[in-house]
Amino acid sequence: MAPSNEPLVIFTPSGRRGRFAPGTTVLDAGRALGVDIDSVCGGRGICGRCQVRQGVGSFAKHGIESRPEHLSPEGEVEADYRRRAGLAADRRLGCTAALLGDVVIDVPPESQVHRQVVRKGIDVRPFAIDPVVRLHYVEVARPELASPSGDLARVHEALATEWGLANIETNLHVVRALQPALEAGDYRVTVAVHDGRAVSAIWAGLHDRAYGVAIDVGSTTIAGHLARLDNGAVLASDGVMNPQIRFGEDLMSRVSYAMLHEGGAGEMTRAVRGALAKLVAGLATKAGVPAREILELTVVGNPIMHHLVLGIDPTPLGTAPFALATDRAVRTTAAELGIRAHPGARVYVLPCIAGHVGADTAGVILAETPHRDASGVRLVVDVGTNAEIVLGNRDRLLAASSPTGPAFEGAQISGGQRAAPGAIERVRIDRRTLEPRIRVIGCEAWSDERGFAEQVAAIGITGICGSGIVEAIAELFLAGVITPDGIIDGMLAARTPRIVADDRVFAYVVHDGAPLLVITQNDVRAIQLAKAALYAGARLLMDRLAVDAVDEIRLAGAFGSQIDPLHAMVLGLIPDCDLEHVGSAGNAAGTGALIALLSAAARTEIEAVVRTVEKIETAVEPRFQEHFVEALAFPHRTAEFTNLGRVVDLPARRSGAGRDPDPRAAQRRRRAALAAAREDR
Amino acid sequence: MAPSNEPLVIFTPSGRRGRFAPGTTVLDAGRALGVDIDSVCGGRGICGRCQVRQGVGSFAKHGIESRPEHLSPEGEVEADYRRRAGLAADRRLGCTAALLGDVVIDVPPESQVHRQVVRKGIDVRPFAIDPVVRLHYVEVARPELASPSGDLARVHEALATEWGLANIETNLHVVRALQPALEAGDYRVTVAVHDGRAVSAIWAGLHDRAYGVAIDVGSTTIAGHLARLDNGAVLASDGVMNPQIRFGEDLMSRVSYAMLHEGGAGEMTRAVRGALAKLVAGLATKAGVPAREILELTVVGNPIMHHLVLGIDPTPLGTAPFALATDRAVRTTAAELGIRAHPGARVYVLPCIAGHVGADTAGVILAETPHRDASGVRLVVDVGTNAEIVLGNRDRLLAASSPTGPAFEGAQISGGQRAAPGAIERVRIDRRTLEPRIRVIGCEAWSDERGFAEQVAAIGITGICGSGIVEAIAELFLAGVITPDGIIDGMLAARTPRIVADDRVFAYVVHDGAPLLVITQNDVRAIQLAKAALYAGARLLMDRLAVDAVDEIRLAGAFGSQIDPLHAMVLGLIPDCDLEHVGSAGNAAGTGALIALLSAAARTEIEAVVRTVEKIETAVEPRFQEHFVEALAFPHRTAEFTNLGRVVDLPARRSGAGRDPDPRAAQRRRRAALAAAREDR
Repeated sequence: MAPSNEPLVIFTPSGRRGRFAPGTTVLDAGRALGVDIDSVCGGRGICGRCQVRQGVGSFAKHGIESRPEHLSPEGEVEADYRRRAGLAADRRLGCTAALLGDVVIDVPPESQVHRQVVRKGIDVRPFAIDPVVRLHYVEVARPELASPSGDLARVHEALATEWGLANIETNLHVVRALQPALEAGDYRVTVAVHDGRAVSAIWAGLHDRAYGVAIDVGSTTIAGHLARLDNGAVLASDGVMNPQIRFGEDLMSRVSYAMLHEGGAGEMTRAVRGALAKLVAGLATKAGVPAREILELTVVGNPIMHHLVLGIDPTPLGTAPFALATDRAVRTTAAELGIRAHPGARVYVLPCIAGHVGADTAGVILAETPHRDASGVRLVVDVGTNAEIVLGNRDRLLAASSPTGPAFEGAQISGGQRAAPGAIERVRIDRRTLEPRIRVIGCEAWSDERGFAEQVAAIGITGICGSGIVEAIAELFLAGVITPDGIIDGMLAARTPRIVADDRVFAYVVHDGAPLLVITQNDVRAIQLAKAALYAGARLLMDRLAVDAVDEIRLAGAFGSQIDPLHAMVLGLIPDCDLEHVGSAGNAAGTGALIALLSAAARTEIEAVVRTVEKIETAVEPRFQEHFVEALAFPHRTAEFTNLGRVVDLPARRSGAGRDPDPRAAQRRRRAALAAAREDR
Repeated sequence: MAPSNEPLVIFTPSGRRGRFAPGTTVLDAGRALGVDIDSVCGGRGICGRCQVRQGVGSFAKHGIESRPEHLSPEGEVEADYRRRAGLAADRRLGCTAALLGDVVIDVPPESQVHRQVVRKGIDVRPFAIDPVVRLHYVEVARPELASPSGDLARVHEALATEWGLANIETNLHVVRALQPALEAGDYRVTVAVHDGRAVSAIWAGLHDRAYGVAIDVGSTTIAGHLARLDNGAVLASDGVMNPQIRFGEDLMSRVSYAMLHEGGAGEMTRAVRGALAKLVAGLATKAGVPAREILELTVVGNPIMHHLVLGIDPTPLGTAPFALATDRAVRTTAAELGIRAHPGARVYVLPCIAGHVGADTAGVILAETPHRDASGVRLVVDVGTNAEIVLGNRDRLLAASSPTGPAFEGAQISGGQRAAPGAIERVRIDRRTLEPRIRVIGCEAWSDERGFAEQVAAIGITGICGSGIVEAIAELFLAGVITPDGIIDGMLAARTPRIVADDRVFAYVVHDGAPLLVITQNDVRAIQLAKAALYAGARLLMDRLAVDAVDEIRLAGAFGSQIDPLHAMVLGLIPDCDLEHVGSAGNAAGTGALIALLSAAARTEIEAVVRTVEKIETAVEPRFQEHFVEALAFPHRTAEFTNLGRVVDLPARRSGAGRDPDPRAAQRRRRAALAAAREDR
C-alpha cells in the first residue's frame, strides 16, 4: 500500500482511484489506474487531448476535500496552450496539472479514447470508438556519428519508450517519408500506428487528425461516409451510381457477364474501383479534407460486389454451391484498389457469410446487433436488388438472401424511377372516390394541400419511386381496386375514369399529366414477385428457427428505410408484427462499415459472429419455392395478419374478377410466373 | 516406453531412432523423430521428394538386422511413381514404404529439406538451405451448400490438418487465383507458404518448383543469380550495367545529383529499378524459367544503392552524420519495385550497417562469416568504387567503408577500361630489360607464348583493366621503375625506350600498338590514392581492434577477386599477411544475397550480427587521414612488410628522382593531393 499521506485522486466517471506521489500529473495517474484519457503528444502539453475538469468541493461520500490548490497552478506550457488553442475556464491539461492534494477529476467524453458515439439521424445503437489507427507524437533521438543507427530504428525506440509500442513494423512508404518528416519537424514527428502493429504514416511535428471512409458497395448505388477516426464525427456522406449497371441491372446478370465475356470480370472490377475512387475523392472535397489524410477505409457489399471490388472473378457465385473465394475479412491497401488516399492507407473488407449473404449483411448485423439480443426474435431486412435477411437473437442467428429484383428500386416498373426530385414517393387513395393524393420528392405539400401546384410546377412530376409504387399498390389493394390475387379489378372502371383498359388488362392512373403515370397489371406482378421473394426468405428463416411470429422488424437499405411499415405489411413484404415494433434501420450496411471503421473491437466481434451465423441458401431450399408461391397473394383478413388487421381494414378474401376458382391451377400459374421471372434475371 | 516388439527404425545420418507400430510409413516415423525428410505432396506418393535408401544387412553396433522384407513391398502408388518419374533401384518412397521390422534408413542429402549447399567455383563456406518459401500440396475439401465456408478457409483448413500450419495469412493475389486453381486442379492444389506465415502463390495440382533471384546492386554493375529455392541450384547468373552511371560515376556524385536536381532521386530510382527488372527478365530467359515462377528475391547494395532501389532519397547520406533512413532489413514486394515476377513475389533487402556500410557488407559477412571465427583476426575487403572493410572474429567485428574511387575498376585511368575481351589483365616486367609480358582477356597465351599474336589479332588489345593496372604498377615498382613514393623514374629512359617523357613527367609504354597503352604518372597517382584509401581503412579498423597484423585476408568484389594477392600486397592495398592466407572471396556480397535467398536462418543470423558490428566512419576519423597520407607510398623493405619481403625482393627505400628530401613537405604535398582527390569525387 502507498502511504496515506500521498494525495488521493478519484476519477469520474470511471470511479477509479489511487494514491500517488505529490507532483504526479493527472495524466500519469490516470494511465497508471487504467483510466481512459486520450493523448496524441504523449503528455507534452501540445495536443490538448487530455483535458480534464477538477471537481471542486467536499466529497463526503469519498471522504475527501478537492480544493483548487490541490492541483498545481497553471504553468508556462499550459498557459501557452490556453493562449494558442483556447481552453475552457474549468479545464486543465491532464499532462501538466499535477497532484498536490486529494482531488476528484472528471474526464469528459471528448477526452476519452473509447468514447461512445451516437449517430444522430440514424437509429443505431451507440457504440464505443476503439481506434484502429492511433496517432502518436514522438521526439526522436537525433542521428549521431558515434552510434549510426537508422532513423527508423530511433523512431521505433521512441515509440517503445514513450508509448510502450514494441515489435512495430513500418511500411516502406513511411520509410521513404521518414527523413523529410524528421528534418521538417526537427526530429519531432507524429506517426500513425495501425492496429498497434504497423506504422502507416508519418508527419512532421504534431498532427492530430486522421480520417477514414466507410463504403457500402450496392449493386445500384455506392454510398460512403467520411469520418474522423478519433471521435467518429461524420464530416461528409455521399453516394454515386454503381457504373457496373451497364453490365446488368441485377447481380445475376453481372455474373453472367463475367461468365460470358472474356475479361468481363476485370472490366467490372475497373468500373467499380473507378467509382470508389471517385466517391472517396468527392467525400474528401465535400468534407474539406485532403484525400491524402485518409488513412483507413472499410468496405461492405454483397458477395458479388465484394468479389468484384477485390478483383476476384465472381463466376463461382453464379452456380451452386455458390462458393465464395473467401468468407474471411480481407485486409488490403487503398493503393491496391486504386483509391487515392494516404500512401499507407489500409482497407478492411468485412467478412462475407455465404455465397449469397455478403459483407453487407455483416455490416447490417454490426449496426443492428441482433446477436446481442437476450430475448425475443428480431428480423432485420436490408431491401435492395437482393434482400438480405437476418433473423434471431443471441442464442441463434440465421441469415439468407432473397432475389427480390429491382422493382422495389423503381426499375422494371412502367412509370418507375429512382428516388429523386420529381418522383412520387407517397400515395393515398380515397376508399370511396378512388381518387389519389400524392406527395412528390422536392415538394413539402401533399397534392390536396396549398402550394402543391406551384411547388410541383418548378420541378415537374417525372415518375414513381419505389416507396411510391409500394404505397400505390397497397392503397389500391386496401381500396379494393386490386384483389388479394393481384388483379386490377376492371369492373371498377365503371366507377372511376382512373381505371383504364390496358391491352387486355387494366391499369390505374396515378398522375393524369405529362408524363401519364399509371400502375399497370405488370407493375403489380413485378411487385408481387419482389415482395413474395422477400417474404418467402423471411418465412424460410422463421421455419428454420421454428417461430411463427417475430417480435421486432427492422427495415434497412435505401428503399427499406423509406417505406412506410404499414404499407410494407399491407403488401406482405414482411411477416405480421406489432407495427410499433417495426422500424427503419437506415442504411444499416453502411452504418456497419462505419462502425468497423471506428472500432477494432467491432471487427473482432463481427469476424466471430459471422462464423456462428447459420446460412440458408434460398435458391436450393424447396420450401422457399413453396413460400414464394404462397406469398404472391396480398394479405387478407385471416389469422395470419392479426396485428395488421387491428390497424387497417383488410379486405376479406373474395372471388374477384380475375380470381381463379381452382387453387391448384392458380399455384401452377404462379409457379410459371416465378420461373419466367427467374429467367429474366 | 513403446513395447519392444514394435519395429525399431534407425535413421542415418542423423542417428535418430525409435520404435513404431508395424505399418507406420518411413516418412511418418521420420517426422515423429524430427528427421529432416522433404515432402511437397504430404505423403501421397506424388512428388518423390522423400526418397530413402534402406541399409540392408546386420548392424551389429545397433544390434539389429535390417532385412529387405522389414519394409513393406512396393505398392501401386510407388510402382506408378517409379514408372512415371523414375526411381533408382535402391530407392524407396518414404511415404509408401512401411515398417514391418527393424530397419536402418538412410536419408540422402537430396531428400533433406535443410541440405547443405556447396557453391562450386566460388570459395564460400557451405551452408544449409532453410527455405523461406515452402511448397505444400493439399487436397482441399469441396464447397458444399450445407456448409458454405469460403474456399480460402478450406485451403487454410487443409494446411492446418495436413501440414500443421496455423494462423496463415493469404495475399489478395492468391485469393484471386484461388478458385481458378481449385477448379483446374480438381481441388488439389499446391500453395507456396512464405516464412511459415503467408500463402504467397497457388497452382493447380502438384507444383514442385520455386525459384528465386539474388541481386547485388553495385554502383557500376548489377549482378544476379537465379536459383531453385528447394535445392539452391544456381541456374543462371548475369550482370547488367547500372544505368545510374549517367548521373555520376561514383556514389557521392549520385547523391549530389539527388541534392541538386528536383526529382533527381526519383529519376535514379526509376533507372535502377528498370535495370533490376531487365536483369531478372534476362536471368529467367537464360535459365529457361518463366519469370512468374520467381517467388522470392533478395537484394544487397551499398547504402546509397539500397536507398535508391527502395525509392528513398539518399540526400542525408551525403553529409554527416550520414543517417540511414533504416538500418533494418526491409521486406517488400517485387511489384513495389516494378520487377515482373510472380504477383506474390516478395523481396528481402538485407540490413545496412551504417551510413557508409551497407547491405552489401551484410552480404559479405553472411558469405564470409567472420563473425563465426573462433580465433585469429580476419580482414575481408570488398573492393569496388567504395571498399567495404570488415575486420575481426566472433568476439568483435568492425566495419568501415573507404572511398577508393573508380581507379581500381579501370575508370579515370589513361588506358583504363572495364574487364572485357581485349583488356590487358596480367602484366609482368622483366627486372633487367624492363620489357613487359602481358596477357589479354579472351586470349589464353601470354604475349611471349606461341599463338598469342594470332589470338590477339582476332580481338585486338583495347585497354588495361583494373587488375592489369595494379599488376603493371606493382611490377614497375618491383623493377625499380617506380619509386616507393610513386614517381616514374625518368633517369631510366636512358635504359629503355619503354619509358617516355609525358609533359614534364614520365610514362611507361605497356603496349606499343594502336591504341598506345601507357601507364602515366597520373595513373600511378590515381592508384596511389585508391590503394591508400583502402589501406587506411583497414589500418583504422586494426587500430580500433588493437592489432598490428591480420591472420587472414579475403578479397571480394569483381575487381578484388581478380587481382593477384601478391601484387595487391606489393602495392600496399592490404596490410602485410602470410600470402598463403590471402585469398579471393569472389562476389561475396552477391553470394551473401544468395545465401539470404535460400535460408531463413541466415536472415535471422545477419539481422542479429549487423547489430553487433562496430561501425567506423572513415570520413570523420582524424586517424584515417593520417593513415591515408602514410599509405600513399609503396611498401619498401621495412619491418612492416615482413611477410611480403619473404616472397618478393622489395626495393630498399632510396632517394629517387622525385624523392622529396623533406618528409614533412612530402606529407603536406600528399595532404594536398588527398584534398584535391576528395574534391574531385
